[in-house]
Amino acid sequence: MNKFLERRNRLRSLMGGEKGLVIFLGNVDSAAQYRDNAYKWRQDSNWLYFYGIDEPRFAAVMDLDSGSETVYADDYEIDDIIWTGPMPSVSSLAAGAGVENSAPYAAFDHDVKAALAAGRRVHCLPVSRWYNAVKMGELFGLDPSACYSVGKKGCPYASEAFVRAVVKMRLVKDAGEIKLLDAAAEIGYAMHTAARKGIRLGRVEQEIVGDMEAVTLSYGWGTSFATILTQHGEIFHCHSHACPVEPGRLLLVDAGAESNEHYASDHTRTYPTGGRFTPRQRDIYQIVYECNERAFGMTAPGVAYRDVHIGAVRHMLDRLGQLGLVRGDVDEMVADGIGGLFMPHGLGHNMGLDVHDMEDLGENLVGYDDDQVRSSQLGLGSLRMARRLVPGNVITDEPGIYFIPALIAQWKAEGTDKGRVCYDKLEEYLDFGGIRLEDDVLVTADGARRLGSRRLPIAPDEVEQAMAED
Amino acid sequence: MNKFLERRNRLRSLMGGEKGLVIFLGNVDSAAQYRDNAYKWRQDSNWLYFYGIDEPRFAAVMDLDSGSETVYADDYEIDDIIWTGPMPSVSSLAAGAGVENSAPYAAFDHDVKAALAAGRRVHCLPVSRWYNAVKMGELFGLDPSACYSVGKKGCPYASEAFVRAVVKMRLVKDAGEIKLLDAAAEIGYAMHTAARKGIRLGRVEQEIVGDMEAVTLSYGWGTSFATILTQHGEIFHCHSHACPVEPGRLLLVDAGAESNEHYASDHTRTYPTGGRFTPRQRDIYQIVYECNERAFGMTAPGVAYRDVHIGAVRHMLDRLGQLGLVRGDVDEMVADGIGGLFMPHGLGHNMGLDVHDMEDLGENLVGYDDDQVRSSQLGLGSLRMARRLVPGNVITDEPGIYFIPALIAQWKAEGTDKGRVCYDKLEEYLDFGGIRLEDDVLVTADGARRLGSRRLPIAPDEVEQAMAED
Repeated sequence: MNKFLERRNRLRSLMGGEKGLVIFLGNVDSAAQYRDNAYKWRQDSNWLYFYGIDEPRFAAVMDLDSGSETVYADDYEIDDIIWTGPMPSVSSLAAGAGVENSAPYAAFDHDVKAALAAGRRVHCLPVSRWYNAVKMGELFGLDPSACYSVGKKGCPYASEAFVRAVVKMRLVKDAGEIKLLDAAAEIGYAMHTAARKGIRLGRVEQEIVGDMEAVTLSYGWGTSFATILTQHGEIFHCHSHACPVEPGRLLLVDAGAESNEHYASDHTRTYPTGGRFTPRQRDIYQIVYECNERAFGMTAPGVAYRDVHIGAVRHMLDRLGQLGLVRGDVDEMVADGIGGLFMPHGLGHNMGLDVHDMEDLGENLVGYDDDQVRSSQLGLGSLRMARRLVPGNVITDEPGIYFIPALIAQWKAEGTDKGRVCYDKLEEYLDFGGIRLEDDVLVTADGARRLGSRRLPIAPDEVEQAMAED
Repeated sequence: MNKFLERRNRLRSLMGGEKGLVIFLGNVDSAAQYRDNAYKWRQDSNWLYFYGIDEPRFAAVMDLDSGSETVYADDYEIDDIIWTGPMPSVSSLAAGAGVENSAPYAAFDHDVKAALAAGRRVHCLPVSRWYNAVKMGELFGLDPSACYSVGKKGCPYASEAFVRAVVKMRLVKDAGEIKLLDAAAEIGYAMHTAARKGIRLGRVEQEIVGDMEAVTLSYGWGTSFATILTQHGEIFHCHSHACPVEPGRLLLVDAGAESNEHYASDHTRTYPTGGRFTPRQRDIYQIVYECNERAFGMTAPGVAYRDVHIGAVRHMLDRLGQLGLVRGDVDEMVADGIGGLFMPHGLGHNMGLDVHDMEDLGENLVGYDDDQVRSSQLGLGSLRMARRLVPGNVITDEPGIYFIPALIAQWKAEGTDKGRVCYDKLEEYLDFGGIRLEDDVLVTADGARRLGSRRLPIAPDEVEQAMAED
């Protein structure tokens, strides 16, 4: 059976108790400089999952009551064909997605409004692009801001039943998806290898980004998120690449590929800029490496990823205690959230068609089981994936240790650490930066495996050897 | 004096007859997959020109009556600083743009609404991003669709006086801008050279794109528009790069760099895939090359670029007549728009901070003098820049010849050619594809020069020689 039809049938069955229309809105082009100079075309991930048509300005309706389905889009006219070449018809694209009926784009508005006027329930997903919020606003007679994204201001037509059904499906990757994720990981391996080979003192970081993203563009759609390549690893979303590579620093590379089929990879490695770690760098690096390994070792069906996060943090605090940076009982430090000072982010996130898979649907519905409450602690509170694992889950394993001067100063001033942090010692590390080490992991029937056929060098000796050979 | 303040003072003086508030809206991040996975950050070009602050979520008000100015944005808080590192304050960024007053972002809405409530005139520019349309809609109590982009549905607050003043300024590049455009052209030279060197039979087009865009990312912000690299040059906006390079074909590469300072380059070259033109390819290539040279030779202050377009088309038709593809009097063919069958686009466009400079402000206000009427003919009707040239204008010179099967069939069926097209001969070319050759040109005091220090190989012999040496 057609893969997309099969998925929609499953969706319909998961929404068994609901009535009315389920509507899907594909993306339109998104202006970069002006309307006709758009950013690189990217279809909506839910649309790709359920219909697979990688073209702009499509919508669809599934009628839960009658069982009928329609895809809406406009066929190209001769003026378009001069600019874009011959295009398949909307009806043939719809047929490829297993949908018999197609209609012009404007009929989507008409049909949805008619259903609303007849008092029928309409289920949509939260939207993350402003055009889609405007479109939803027009359909529902709402302010676009009320239809944008998730959370308190969420659109009243954004349907929890619809979201839960989609999450249930997309959280567990099927064999075809796993193949595509393995392929994306291969591009990730190649891009990170290009980055590592590009590290030479005096080169500007941006030149290394160019070397790396060349690989991504040659073999994939592009990067799965904005590349982080920085000698300031302690700044999580540092997107500046203006500095020359300096001796004695650490260069953190957090980057991923999105394949032509739009599945993501996401790896992080941290390199000594001159090819050899200093003793102090190696101490901290070794701890992060051990946390990565320990987390991977804990990853298995039935285990809550929240517990894997906590296990990694426990190990980190134990080892930081050995270095004299924290003191006291490890369990108490874990309970008091001391790990958040060094790792103010979660251990990992789901990955699939989105690098943070389904983040647009709401992190708690995606990443938490019904009986899990999200922590308010720094670090654990940022954990995007806490669920009990099942085979087919794809997650990242990305512990890190950072020395963030502003955060350290704040904790010290506010006594947040309850006396457990050794600030005298810690102050020696204020110029250290940060280290993160990230792999992409598939939960299997009896444990876990890393995606892709090869693992990027990660043990400190391996990294130094690879850099010596580059 | 501060460059941005100088520009705003000039703007104020050009709007001398107007009263009320002039408002500027910078961009916010634009979601690719979901809200926090945004496309690469790109500031609004008008904002960059008048304020230069390359950060999201800024706005500004110039009061034409009191002379006061305010920049609006929110300072970062500690939670942001963990993710983004220390940031300069809004007030220091405003001071860098020569603005004394700054206020929180929310005060922008408040101040604009207060002016409207007091019955004051508010001047804004047309917007091209949906978030900005939503924002304008909220300010003015309008439907976002009514505030989006230009044309009939344009926002009533989009001010022609404001647009005309901006166009007058940005059309004429100052010495600093010319330096930045020359630098962007150097990146353009390097990226096109990488593309040419990457052409080998059997490689997939996408691999060549990767080689080329690596250069762009290493030395600039990215591409100035979505790369066209295709063996189907007759499809103008062919963004598929999935085909392997085949023998005997033509590979058209239309690509540009946007520098880190956000100035554009835009070049097109067309290569024989095997390194040598066939006689038929060389015949057509030679004509396009001559048109490019002829257009450049005509480009000088006081000349209307519309006439340069017509001059290039006249030469093209004359030479196509020699090949037996058209017949009859050249002037009559020009008058009847026969050139549009072979070149259904304009000769060139303005270039600056945008590759189609200021396209968001409306093509006719940007590219046409008050006494010029836009043609309805195919080709000439697409001409984006028709104005009488003045020193400091930067334009592209990009003639092309294409054989578009669907268009040829339509003209034949409808008799659009008035008997001037030799279809028997033309049918031999249905598999030819298309050729375009594009340079970036600065109008100087006494003529014109091409941007950048070196011209990409363009004469047919030069191209073959360069490919032999690659």
